[in-house]
Amino acid sequence: MKYKKINIGIVGLGQIGSRLYREIIFKKRDIELKTSTRVNILAISAKNSNKKRDFNFKRKIFYKNPLHISKDPNIDIVFELIGYSDGISKKIIETALKNKKHVITANKALIAKHGDYLSLLAEKNKVNLEFEAAVGGGIPILRTIKDGLSTNKINKVVGILNGTCNYILSQMETQNNSFSNVLKRAQRLGYAEPRDPILDLNGYDTLAKVRILSALSFNKKVSKNICLMNGIENIELEDIEMAKKLNFRIKLLGITEIIDGMLFERVHPCLVKKDTYIANINGVMNAVILNGDPVGESVLQGEGAGPGPTSSALMSDLLSILRGNIKYPFGTPFNKRKKIKPYDSKFYLNSLYLRIEVKDIPGVLSSITKVFAKNKISIKNLIQKPDKKNKKASIIIITHENYEKNYKNLLLNLSKNKFLIKKPTFIRIEKV
Amino acid sequence: MKYKKINIGIVGLGQIGSRLYREIIFKKRDIELKTSTRVNILAISAKNSNKKRDFNFKRKIFYKNPLHISKDPNIDIVFELIGYSDGISKKIIETALKNKKHVITANKALIAKHGDYLSLLAEKNKVNLEFEAAVGGGIPILRTIKDGLSTNKINKVVGILNGTCNYILSQMETQNNSFSNVLKRAQRLGYAEPRDPILDLNGYDTLAKVRILSALSFNKKVSKNICLMNGIENIELEDIEMAKKLNFRIKLLGITEIIDGMLFERVHPCLVKKDTYIANINGVMNAVILNGDPVGESVLQGEGAGPGPTSSALMSDLLSILRGNIKYPFGTPFNKRKKIKPYDSKFYLNSLYLRIEVKDIPGVLSSITKVFAKNKISIKNLIQKPDKKNKKASIIIITHENYEKNYKNLLLNLSKNKFLIKKPTFIRIEKV
Repeated sequence: MKYKKINIGIVGLGQIGSRLYREIIFKKRDIELKTSTRVNILAISAKNSNKKRDFNFKRKIFYKNPLHISKDPNIDIVFELIGYSDGISKKIIETALKNKKHVITANKALIAKHGDYLSLLAEKNKVNLEFEAAVGGGIPILRTIKDGLSTNKINKVVGILNGTCNYILSQMETQNNSFSNVLKRAQRLGYAEPRDPILDLNGYDTLAKVRILSALSFNKKVSKNICLMNGIENIELEDIEMAKKLNFRIKLLGITEIIDGMLFERVHPCLVKKDTYIANINGVMNAVILNGDPVGESVLQGEGAGPGPTSSALMSDLLSILRGNIKYPFGTPFNKRKKIKPYDSKFYLNSLYLRIEVKDIPGVLSSITKVFAKNKISIKNLIQKPDKKNKKASIIIITHENYEKNYKNLLLNLSKNKFLIKKPTFIRIEKV
Repeated sequence: MKYKKINIGIVGLGQIGSRLYREIIFKKRDIELKTSTRVNILAISAKNSNKKRDFNFKRKIFYKNPLHISKDPNIDIVFELIGYSDGISKKIIETALKNKKHVITANKALIAKHGDYLSLLAEKNKVNLEFEAAVGGGIPILRTIKDGLSTNKINKVVGILNGTCNYILSQMETQNNSFSNVLKRAQRLGYAEPRDPILDLNGYDTLAKVRILSALSFNKKVSKNICLMNGIENIELEDIEMAKKLNFRIKLLGITEIIDGMLFERVHPCLVKKDTYIANINGVMNAVILNGDPVGESVLQGEGAGPGPTSSALMSDLLSILRGNIKYPFGTPFNKRKKIKPYDSKFYLNSLYLRIEVKDIPGVLSSITKVFAKNKISIKNLIQKPDKKNKKASIIIITHENYEKNYKNLLLNLSKNKFLIKKPTFIRIEKV
């Protein structure tokens, strides 16, 4: 049998890059079988060439300047695994595409920011730009949308897209432990960034993934809209417990949907009924629910992060390229992907869970409920939990459905209320 | 923009074929966008040309003899949607492949039986043979194994692969209704064959799908092994209720795995813990759980049957071909796919649930338990439910783990027991 020969360059040799390196070596024979192609890692680059790694390589394949890999005429495919949303990561990809090299990356922040520009560059140069690993880790969700459900009209995608947040919320419930303690454990276990976990926790990471999912699902440009984005930083054990009592569970969801022809993308913690599918995705797992016509509802679930699932996704990109499967990075040509008007979130109708910490003195309840009445928001449930020792109380309120804009005013008015000890915590109730 | 032109022939215009016909017309523009190809339905064929259909077509595209479509030099892609495991279905596909036409089919029985031969034929003629719709309906499970998880080493696949059975079992539980009543309803709703539903109910349909999944997951030939295969025909409402009390749910599972380098394929009803993922797939839904390395556990869930999901899968096959994605039908070339020795099911270790209907007279229990002791099968739980009015009793037994071969002897010995009113019902307890 005659094999094609393909040379690979890998930029970035952290956990993911190292695992990928070993995976390519280990699966060489398998790749030959499935694609009649012999792959060869011809170049690698990382910050530090002398760092101890769990694999051996010939010194001559190590490049100090990663851009030289993007320009090397012997290289056919470049893996970008550094992960910045701009800077050197963008430069590496840009240069590689311009030099007619296929690019594979796991970089969601960069694809969410520059995906349109880079996809155009890939299309012009007739090479692939693949980023399966950017969303959902081991779940082949992008390929499923592009290939498996290719002609479906998708109208809504809901996902648990950040394993760190899901792990923290799950652990708070099962271990009955505080946010900060669980976060510390997540950091020890490598699920959360040790120094600055904020991009995971505040919803930013999920939003980047939502933007990529939207572009693929609705055949449109990657949106730059300002979106509803709340993280899990303010969720306390008390909310977890209260949700449980009310037969809910708290999940950080990324949601994108088309409402009246407009695009509504958002990321925020949600109260979801305990017996729903999404409520039962626990730990570091990711899950995506798609609604399409004619397929109906499709659900995909799998490990969301870590070297194993991520390298599985990177390898699927590699094999797709080796099979000669040259495709538009977002499934549809750049100039056919429309811009869609954003849906104004202030018209979003939902119920809200609020936890309001107040001083435990007479007149509080009437003062608080008056604020609700003034904003024409009617209360469905109200639970008062006094904490006599600390002379405070928690007021938990579930509202009847109302508009986002009215809640905004409500929260503003509440925060001015003199009985409040701190800003209220609010979580949207989501029917999924 | 310059478009390629591709001509399509559709053989079989039942529910699926008709929906596909309309879907292709309706999505023409979308297909052009995504593949730069203009598709044209140039030929159709069905048993009856005069039947009233929900779409219009020019008489001249109707072929009396479907084999003429397979031979027509103007046709590029043939859809086989008749569904026989042999005969005309096989002939249509064979002829089309030999004439260098791509073939798309939803025919699991045929692929399970002749998949190896036909894939070789496709490979030789450098055309595609695609059958995504054969397994899991709207779940793009074959594409996920072939592409999304392409270099993973998969070691186990567990699935709910027959929507009819799952619907019946779910409805028996939720509606508290008998097997035969629920079956009748399933037939009225079009979920079960009106005349002969046995191929759905006895596990045969699921086994065909399991064989296809094995071939793809383990890069091997389609097995012809005799497998453990039991259907749901003997499950009664009493089993459903008893399972519920014992914190289980009954599901018909298709399972394939590699044990000590040998292939173990089986289909049978299983008692699965109520809080597991698979236990909570209800109604006509299908679900597949894959275990792979490095990806970990992946779960896919979606509608398993019906014109919508099936045509979604057929369309994904079409687009894959239009993108020029010529691939080995089973992901790996024919001659590289090994035969794997079958695992001998008699060494399979599991616990069993048994319901034994006996005459309610003294000495029964000791006589029955003696049979267990003689076969060295120890009992974990025993529940006796007398039915005084009919002078009978049900004995429900959960065993400790034991070998399949010992259960075989047990069942043989039990059926000879003079107190038994009918053959015992047994369901394997499955840890998933």
